[in-house]
Amino acid sequence: MRAVIMHGPGDVRVEETPRPTIIEPTDAVIRVTAACVCGSDLWPYRGIEPVRRPTRMGHEYIGIVEEIGEAVHDIAVGDFVVGSFVASDGTCEICQAGYESRCIHQVMMGSVGTQADFARIPLADGTLVKVEGTPTEAQTRSLLAASDVLGTGWFAAVAAEAGPGKTVAVVGDGAVGLLGILAAKRLGAERIIAMSRHADRQALARQFGATDIVEERGAEGVGRIKELTGGYGAHSTIEAVGTQESMDQAIQATRPGGHVGFVGVSHGVELDGLGLFFSTVHLHGGPAPVRRFLPELIDLIMTDQIDPGVVFDLIVPIEDAAEAYRAMDERRATKALLTL
Amino acid sequence: MRAVIMHGPGDVRVEETPRPTIIEPTDAVIRVTAACVCGSDLWPYRGIEPVRRPTRMGHEYIGIVEEIGEAVHDIAVGDFVVGSFVASDGTCEICQAGYESRCIHQVMMGSVGTQADFARIPLADGTLVKVEGTPTEAQTRSLLAASDVLGTGWFAAVAAEAGPGKTVAVVGDGAVGLLGILAAKRLGAERIIAMSRHADRQALARQFGATDIVEERGAEGVGRIKELTGGYGAHSTIEAVGTQESMDQAIQATRPGGHVGFVGVSHGVELDGLGLFFSTVHLHGGPAPVRRFLPELIDLIMTDQIDPGVVFDLIVPIEDAAEAYRAMDERRATKALLTL
Repeated sequence: MRAVIMHGPGDVRVEETPRPTIIEPTDAVIRVTAACVCGSDLWPYRGIEPVRRPTRMGHEYIGIVEEIGEAVHDIAVGDFVVGSFVASDGTCEICQAGYESRCIHQVMMGSVGTQADFARIPLADGTLVKVEGTPTEAQTRSLLAASDVLGTGWFAAVAAEAGPGKTVAVVGDGAVGLLGILAAKRLGAERIIAMSRHADRQALARQFGATDIVEERGAEGVGRIKELTGGYGAHSTIEAVGTQESMDQAIQATRPGGHVGFVGVSHGVELDGLGLFFSTVHLHGGPAPVRRFLPELIDLIMTDQIDPGVVFDLIVPIEDAAEAYRAMDERRATKALLTL
Repeated sequence: MRAVIMHGPGDVRVEETPRPTIIEPTDAVIRVTAACVCGSDLWPYRGIEPVRRPTRMGHEYIGIVEEIGEAVHDIAVGDFVVGSFVASDGTCEICQAGYESRCIHQVMMGSVGTQADFARIPLADGTLVKVEGTPTEAQTRSLLAASDVLGTGWFAAVAAEAGPGKTVAVVGDGAVGLLGILAAKRLGAERIIAMSRHADRQALARQFGATDIVEERGAEGVGRIKELTGGYGAHSTIEAVGTQESMDQAIQATRPGGHVGFVGVSHGVELDGLGLFFSTVHLHGGPAPVRRFLPELIDLIMTDQIDPGVVFDLIVPIEDAAEAYRAMDERRATKALLTL
């Protein structure tokens, strides 16, 4: 089967690899019908994370169940399914509390690689959610978004306690930040301030529900958020980048007692303890427990209440994966979908 | 009047100073009937924070209102009052949201100095709470504790979301940590693990509701907490020290999705962003909004439902303030009360 392999920074190839098989009785094998390139795939692509050996890529996926292990009961061959980027057992205390992304038996799907014709999904019962009915093309794209970027943006908005009466600031205008805006809007936020310098992303931000755009960054950006909120700062801030600057900006833009939901994978971030102490914000984030939100998100998508799939502004066959990575790296594309 | 002045590390004196007067119409002047020495007073005493000039000390207090400014309406001369260690207006959006310690007009009472016969209390209406009835001697001590250590421990327990069914770990066995135990117990925690190596403090911890004691620290301490919680970690952790070790310990001892309430004033703490990201805990803390809890705490004290005043294990007249500091520095006393 075809699979995307990263050989080093900037070096992505599509190669023939063996088709996966059931290893554990709790596994399923799915035929991937669409996958995509994640902002986090760009860290190794840009050489910020090491690529020590040729590495299978991809952790977002939708597809049709081809085969199941003998301990799989809730998912059947032929089901059209969506799963999270972390496989989880669904039964441990951490999963039961809604933190499936930190399941004690978690398997990062990035270690499996879903930019491929087929993928082995560990812990299938706990990980996969069946989609009822036949999704349209637009719904299909949105279901793929639910697998990570929508689920992650949603978690960020929930972690930031976006809701009625709240002013929500969003740091980061990638797919996750943009879908954080969509989530904040759905959760009832009164005002949503998107921090973005790119006209096309500003437009998408407004389409998803942003009421204000702030182009300034750093201290100036924080100053603008304060100005827009009577000097207090945002009630809720979504951080969707993962750099020192973005984390500092998110914490400083939030009022005392407010909530920061951070989902950008931290790269070289060190938080000053005293600064955090006197900020008096709530800080919560990490790898999003997408599985918690999947049933609700699938329902919203299949009833056309949300259309997160519009973040895919580049759709190419898997053979053109190298171009998909390049386009995202060069910011010519916000989010690239790979068809199979 | 008499006031405690710190001249440098280890150098605390009681000196005659001018009696304070009303400056702003929102001020009150109180006759302090008891004050105390805070763990945070030990930072400059130990030379960890600089003492740049002779400095008035103290930010915890109870007393009787002597004089009020003309804009004070809710407090009257003769009232017996308790206030927080931060003066707050009670009306701004931050106060209204329950974060009075970060009021936009906040005045740190440490800059006023309450280890003295009299103290000027800014923003008296927003800051002071009248105590109805005549407290007993034990209740008086407890009311003084409410001014900071009890209120701070309470906030830590609330920030850590201590409650029914929860296992709460407490890092720090000073007065705040101990009263965090009391708070967690009152909030309904099922199990409370105190981290302490001192027999006398372990005894007080058990008196306040601790069900388990862990003497190990660092990675070993974290390992013990994990062992005691089925490998998951605590649901809620109270951090009441403020060092790198205590913060790391608190975060690592908490399960994914759990809550860390941190109230130790950070000294040299740097939090690793990636570690925090993958911990997936909720982190909330800072200077405790004691004022939020005062009415409830006063009620619990005046109805003898809690007796936090037992943390005072050294009671001396203000003239002996130097000995009070020394005893706390040498850990001969957990918490010293100064009578006036």
